[in-house]
Amino acid sequence: MPERCDDEGIAFGRSRKTKIIIDADPGIDAAMAIIMALRSPEVEVIGITTIFGSAHTPDVTRNALHLLEVMGSTHVPVAEGNIKPMAGGVPYIQDFANGLDGLGNIATAEPATKKSAMSACDFLVDTVSKYPGEITIVALGPLTNLSQAFQKEECVVKLVARVVVLGGSFFSSGNANPASEANVICDPEAADMVFSSGARITVIGINVSTQVVLEGRDLSKLSDSSTESKRSLHEMCKLYREWHKKSDLFDGIYVHGPTCLAALIAPSYFSYKSGALRVETLGVCRGYTLFDMGLKKWNGLNPWVGRPHVDVAWTVDASKVLELVLERLIHTDT
Amino acid sequence: MPERCDDEGIAFGRSRKTKIIIDADPGIDAAMAIIMALRSPEVEVIGITTIFGSAHTPDVTRNALHLLEVMGSTHVPVAEGNIKPMAGGVPYIQDFANGLDGLGNIATAEPATKKSAMSACDFLVDTVSKYPGEITIVALGPLTNLSQAFQKEECVVKLVARVVVLGGSFFSSGNANPASEANVICDPEAADMVFSSGARITVIGINVSTQVVLEGRDLSKLSDSSTESKRSLHEMCKLYREWHKKSDLFDGIYVHGPTCLAALIAPSYFSYKSGALRVETLGVCRGYTLFDMGLKKWNGLNPWVGRPHVDVAWTVDASKVLELVLERLIHTDT
Repeated sequence: MPERCDDEGIAFGRSRKTKIIIDADPGIDAAMAIIMALRSPEVEVIGITTIFGSAHTPDVTRNALHLLEVMGSTHVPVAEGNIKPMAGGVPYIQDFANGLDGLGNIATAEPATKKSAMSACDFLVDTVSKYPGEITIVALGPLTNLSQAFQKEECVVKLVARVVVLGGSFFSSGNANPASEANVICDPEAADMVFSSGARITVIGINVSTQVVLEGRDLSKLSDSSTESKRSLHEMCKLYREWHKKSDLFDGIYVHGPTCLAALIAPSYFSYKSGALRVETLGVCRGYTLFDMGLKKWNGLNPWVGRPHVDVAWTVDASKVLELVLERLIHTDT
Repeated sequence: MPERCDDEGIAFGRSRKTKIIIDADPGIDAAMAIIMALRSPEVEVIGITTIFGSAHTPDVTRNALHLLEVMGSTHVPVAEGNIKPMAGGVPYIQDFANGLDGLGNIATAEPATKKSAMSACDFLVDTVSKYPGEITIVALGPLTNLSQAFQKEECVVKLVARVVVLGGSFFSSGNANPASEANVICDPEAADMVFSSGARITVIGINVSTQVVLEGRDLSKLSDSSTESKRSLHEMCKLYREWHKKSDLFDGIYVHGPTCLAALIAPSYFSYKSGALRVETLGVCRGYTLFDMGLKKWNGLNPWVGRPHVDVAWTVDASKVLELVLERLIHTDT
């Protein structure tokens, strides 16, 4: 069994385009990241795995298929994921920000293409095993599928080149409630399991992603666009923009998913801290991401001691990331 | 029954010296705050109530009596508090930083003075009721006594002028473990109850108090002092200074308690945010203080919505606070 790829191997992989699987809940924000990824020469999207969050899982699967049709990328397989969090129960669905369909109530046509016969879990296990040390998973939703894949085949933890996670809020407030960021609150048990798995993990929290704001005036430029993908983007963002006005009191939108993708394709725009990351699964702070970056020597044991480390985004050059997002989503000719 | 004192009433009280009860666990840090309070003309210490933390409750009671003897302030009553946290169980004792006696293993003589016949809870209830709207409680340890007093007589919540709490860590790491500050981890249930009580509460977290560092060279100046209180301070700080070298990797000590007292006597050195504060009582983040300062409009209910607000210290002019601490503890003639 090949070992986890070393840095040179990953670099070699990148020179040929980094192979990515997007594990996501499109969802307006994740849809923007998917469109951006499909337009980014640095990466090759070899699959999308879906998970509830912005809408229920069947809806986000339909949305993923729809986006691939709009983008002319129907060769990319879509594997449907779990419909419930790891611990069961009713999934937390952010329809208030994404509309009932997950894409801003834009009444998309039923896709002609079909989802993969494989589950998201099986697709992740099979694809990572097929390309050992080459696959980067860009996880833009709850981490249910990924935790399931890690549990089904432990070697996936070592075989995956890297996982770039959009999730958590570090030394700052959540966005689902004061304690938790929306992706993590959907499945805290899965997030805690993934962060402690020992895989090579990079985490972009909303304390970083909310520094990148796409302003309303830039979104408005899309309205008279000549391409379907840009008109579609404009339509789906309307509800999301209104939501930000009510919830965050500004005219524009956060581009969490595109920022997370930028961390992969433009790493120099970000800096990181390394440490142990635990997710609270109980009490009022359920979903809180608590990161110990090792500034203090602890007296005795605690739940962070001895855990594998992850890299958590610490700073971002927000204007450069925004420039990249604008280039790929707004100022593009396609 | 008199109502909670308005701002004018409190101001009038202050002009005559603010009456304070110090609810604390001396403990080296709390001992420094007690000495500083006894030397501060802005306040009148009308009692000390004791609570476990730095050492077990009987030890910190003995230490409080000892400090009052050293300072020639044996007229101040000492009322002993709880020996266990609100939820029961074994108290968390920070002997690793304070020594087995709580004062740096300095082998103090048994005090000649005796503790009050009243419990801390009864002393708090009786004294606050006797001086409605006039008493400020400076809470430098776990909040067990205060929560007990608030539960015993609900009117104490309204009758106390103000509670200034040293506790929690806001948008930063804990010091007992990555999740919790030491005072709060001793009794998270009590802290959560007090912060949600509706009393007028000011909270100084270690994210603010650790900005004020008393350097080793300043502590060394006390070694050849002519006064007993300063020599005693030098002796008790030896172990604490060693602990900081091991735990926080610098030569000096944090002055958490004196900084908290400074928030009362030099309010202009601090700025605050107002919001709802909850303490996690379960899971890996037990003891975490999560503060919602209302920057975002929440979609639906969460454990912070509708809770009474407290003021949490946001910034501190650390150099001015340090100057005040040096003036009252090191550069004093007494």
